[in-house]
Amino acid sequence: MSSDALNNNNFTLLHPGFTRDDLLRLNEDMLPVLAEEVRAFIIDTVNKNGGHLGSSLGVVELTIAMLRKFDPFNDRIIFDVGHQSYPYKILTDRFDRFHTLRLKDGISGFPRRNESPCDHFNTGHSSTSISAALGFAKARDLLNENRHIIAFIGDASLINGLAFEALNYIHETQTRLIIILNDNRHSISNRVGGFSTILARLSANTTYRRLKNAIRKYAGVRFSKPLERIRDHIKNLIKPSNLFDSIDINYWGPFDGHDIKNAEKILELAKNYDRPVLLHFNTVKGKGLPEAEADPTKYHQVSPSGQAKSRTWSEAASEIAEELALNDPRIVCFTAAMVTGVKLEKFAREFPDRFFDVGIAESHMLTMAAGLAAGGVRPWVFIYSTFLQRAMDQLMHDIALQNLPVVIMVDRAGLAGSDGDTHQGLLDIPWVRAVPNFEIYSPCDEDSLREAMLIASRRNGPTLIRYPRGSIPVKNISVSSSESEFESGIVKICDGTQWALLGHGASVWTMIETRKLAEHEGVDVPAVYNAKRIKPLDMNALDEILSHYKTLAVLEENYMPGGLGEGVGAVIAERASHVKLMRFGVPDVCVKHATQSEQRELYGLTPENIIKQYKSHEE
Amino acid sequence: MSSDALNNNNFTLLHPGFTRDDLLRLNEDMLPVLAEEVRAFIIDTVNKNGGHLGSSLGVVELTIAMLRKFDPFNDRIIFDVGHQSYPYKILTDRFDRFHTLRLKDGISGFPRRNESPCDHFNTGHSSTSISAALGFAKARDLLNENRHIIAFIGDASLINGLAFEALNYIHETQTRLIIILNDNRHSISNRVGGFSTILARLSANTTYRRLKNAIRKYAGVRFSKPLERIRDHIKNLIKPSNLFDSIDINYWGPFDGHDIKNAEKILELAKNYDRPVLLHFNTVKGKGLPEAEADPTKYHQVSPSGQAKSRTWSEAASEIAEELALNDPRIVCFTAAMVTGVKLEKFAREFPDRFFDVGIAESHMLTMAAGLAAGGVRPWVFIYSTFLQRAMDQLMHDIALQNLPVVIMVDRAGLAGSDGDTHQGLLDIPWVRAVPNFEIYSPCDEDSLREAMLIASRRNGPTLIRYPRGSIPVKNISVSSSESEFESGIVKICDGTQWALLGHGASVWTMIETRKLAEHEGVDVPAVYNAKRIKPLDMNALDEILSHYKTLAVLEENYMPGGLGEGVGAVIAERASHVKLMRFGVPDVCVKHATQSEQRELYGLTPENIIKQYKSHEE
Repeated sequence: MSSDALNNNNFTLLHPGFTRDDLLRLNEDMLPVLAEEVRAFIIDTVNKNGGHLGSSLGVVELTIAMLRKFDPFNDRIIFDVGHQSYPYKILTDRFDRFHTLRLKDGISGFPRRNESPCDHFNTGHSSTSISAALGFAKARDLLNENRHIIAFIGDASLINGLAFEALNYIHETQTRLIIILNDNRHSISNRVGGFSTILARLSANTTYRRLKNAIRKYAGVRFSKPLERIRDHIKNLIKPSNLFDSIDINYWGPFDGHDIKNAEKILELAKNYDRPVLLHFNTVKGKGLPEAEADPTKYHQVSPSGQAKSRTWSEAASEIAEELALNDPRIVCFTAAMVTGVKLEKFAREFPDRFFDVGIAESHMLTMAAGLAAGGVRPWVFIYSTFLQRAMDQLMHDIALQNLPVVIMVDRAGLAGSDGDTHQGLLDIPWVRAVPNFEIYSPCDEDSLREAMLIASRRNGPTLIRYPRGSIPVKNISVSSSESEFESGIVKICDGTQWALLGHGASVWTMIETRKLAEHEGVDVPAVYNAKRIKPLDMNALDEILSHYKTLAVLEENYMPGGLGEGVGAVIAERASHVKLMRFGVPDVCVKHATQSEQRELYGLTPENIIKQYKSHEE
Repeated sequence: MSSDALNNNNFTLLHPGFTRDDLLRLNEDMLPVLAEEVRAFIIDTVNKNGGHLGSSLGVVELTIAMLRKFDPFNDRIIFDVGHQSYPYKILTDRFDRFHTLRLKDGISGFPRRNESPCDHFNTGHSSTSISAALGFAKARDLLNENRHIIAFIGDASLINGLAFEALNYIHETQTRLIIILNDNRHSISNRVGGFSTILARLSANTTYRRLKNAIRKYAGVRFSKPLERIRDHIKNLIKPSNLFDSIDINYWGPFDGHDIKNAEKILELAKNYDRPVLLHFNTVKGKGLPEAEADPTKYHQVSPSGQAKSRTWSEAASEIAEELALNDPRIVCFTAAMVTGVKLEKFAREFPDRFFDVGIAESHMLTMAAGLAAGGVRPWVFIYSTFLQRAMDQLMHDIALQNLPVVIMVDRAGLAGSDGDTHQGLLDIPWVRAVPNFEIYSPCDEDSLREAMLIASRRNGPTLIRYPRGSIPVKNISVSSSESEFESGIVKICDGTQWALLGHGASVWTMIETRKLAEHEGVDVPAVYNAKRIKPLDMNALDEILSHYKTLAVLEENYMPGGLGEGVGAVIAERASHVKLMRFGVPDVCVKHATQSEQRELYGLTPENIIKQYKSHEE
């Protein structure tokens, strides 16, 4: 146990080598103490490493109860999203490693099957847990296994269409399944939609008091009676009077999610129940950290302490959107539960009628944007690259095929760092390059971001603008004076001989550094070309490049199949040009969590590697 | 008016140049007669041209009522899916052209904005209507326009997650919107899920009698009273006691969808209501055609009469799946409301416990399949290429990143014919080539289909197998004897000189014909290579090809950006090989409805064009 975290805290119950067996041996009166120690450990670790704080703090007691009543090695516990899995990780044999949270080769911030036999299903995106749990339940039935299947889902994830499709399908499956609804009345930001009023009404409702009492009563029974009789008795007490019951999912609740003893009783009863059941627990997001309880949105995700705050791409993009919106009353902006992530708070305040936070509902967001555009309005959709994957058919079927003027602002594009493989932004370019009518822009600094947004605002078709996670470069290198330059797809930044570098977005800075390194090392000095527009490809500029250099190296921070490099390669081969192509990008693998610069290092997106590869090719 | 249809039917009300004004002028007693004439015209046209029959027959009366109460030029009527739009097309100034339904340059089988000012939003995939209608409603509010917005949706579309996300969001929008629920108790096949029990219960419920009576009563009033008073009175009669009411959507119904007079009254009341309202109409799918009423699944979509029935790719694929399932009890099969389309009826009968029809819920299907695979079972998902677009994040996030052994059987891949741009299967290869861990196979005949399915059944990772719409070739050309051949990615079919053709799937037959044509025309005779596996690319075979020929022509029936041609082009350029690349595939455009062979002609995927292009390049 090498963590400072442990040394700085005087844990009495948590200790090196802590296992789930230790948890089972604890006297139940000690469990609240354990909960406080788990909380302290999480707060300390997240302060150092960054991570998701509020959700994990809210589920400490529920996790303890769950781990005492279910066997994480045999039962299957499926977390939804998974950023609330920190207490689970700490209490399932990973206490000793938890200080490596989100670090390269360390503990992932999300459930990962290759990390522990207690992690049963990888997550990161929302609302997959019920579908996956139904799959596990059916597999159990088909293989005649004996285990409990638990989906552990938050209220915000429940309003996503995927979760609803799974809830609807439970009726058909005729199998046992336990859904634990962790209701903290918060999406990442505030909860959205009519469904939240149902949950609120349930939480305030007295209809279920009798049921609650019955459950408490039977939870004390040692189950000597036939289970059927208990079930029938409970059934008689309830009637299908809420959404869950009416779609054949037994609803029990709401219960206090911070009362471990009571939660254990309810889980015990659910274990012995032979129908799909949803247990509704109310919890407090950020529980135990007063500032997080007071502002759960701010403390949803926390950066490592001491990190300098510089102007981000998200801030620049939202500010430019505000400027454009001032001049064009048709502009409206969308986010899917990411108002703080994409920095639209100010836009939302200044243009309340022209701002839509749809909750975690990316598919609906894009189709509604298509409807607005068809109705004469100009929607701008701000979305992380990884979550755009959730709405690809809407992008194709509703926006592209109708050639509607929707602008997709793709944040966190490229290598995205510590959230791991589920959160990288590597597919937007390969996927949207294949979609008709879309133009794709990849700015490298604030000037070219503004330029791309101006172009998008004037287009009568759909535009995708992608920009990376993190700080926007202060130095602007793509200042354009003439209108023709403004419209250019590929522009030359620096002269060179023998070879040229062609890249876009964050890679532009890597190219400039590569050129400097070549000068320094006495290698052929490459020309540098900035592909501001990825689609359509600027064929004139590309032909110009192909006629001037012997080697062309393409850099891109996305998966290489379907990327710019392949597009350029096809042109070279069609021209039967003798130019040799080199490609640098993210290979066809799952990208593990690490910092962005560690990831760039790993995949050779560095000046050192580019020079090295060029030299070895020239030999 | 040149259609035989008209001449063969003695229409008394429908006539050349029939407009919506004619509809308004009709005495309401004549409307049932009009309905019968519209039905007869649809049945006749679909018998000749093929198309979607049952849904359109079911909504004739509702469409008449809707078109008399709403102005299709000013109001916005958004069809969901849109295969029920035939009566609407006939009655909105397209009577004269309707005999060209689904033919090249003719009337589309779905709403198309470029076809009529009365078509407001293009559709084809399900469950987009409420999101799009919310977009139109918000655009109306922002632009201070005065129009009604109507979403016209079937009960099967309502269980898709996209529709649910939109229903949930209505609560936030604070605007007027009319949802017409056309409840025919049928998905394309039977309705699925717990939600359907809600609708069934509503249809059987007496709770709404008073409301219905009230609505009938006020529908007779001439609205001299302030509207608020009517609304308040209605509000007092109802309580939030069903799903829709509880998420802030007023529910009125159920009503008889074949009673035009009554439907008009209800629509009139809804027009004057100032809150979101859902009108629940019960209709009979296939109404008026006894055989279609008796078997709505069979008559959902109809082929042109007289078309020869030969063995299809879908039949072959499902038969092989049955064989594999007999030998491997872990194999289960999935469809999303397409059991007849993908021909899994027999599998469903023989393995009822191992078959899942999830309804129109593609996203849930893939995540549930991932759960089953993680639980030790081997799921095979049968899905049309175009609908796989609905589940791309689930394919990436839940299946690929966990490297789970799920097999995606992609039916209707490539150019898909008369359903038009929304139904082409052109993105599976470009999109999945960029996804790690997946292997992609594209068989050209039954032997190679079987081979690919055997390989997939043995893999411990995910596999995509794509096959076209239509007949599977009887002649098998890829018989493999040795194990090494069995594993090959690219195999040579015919020798040649100077140039080689490389393609996959249906293109293999085009390549063989091209070679014959070259022999016949005395042009250089190309070698022919079959890319049975698209991913990973068979680099050994490709290097072999590059060392033997001066020109390589790649054929592919998918969008070219991100396709095989680009992948090959990048390799040629990286090798600095002097081989010249030619590419034949679907360009970066929206593909209009026409037959598959007309589409292939249009995009130059024909022997004649390939030879012509080769000759012009060689000159």
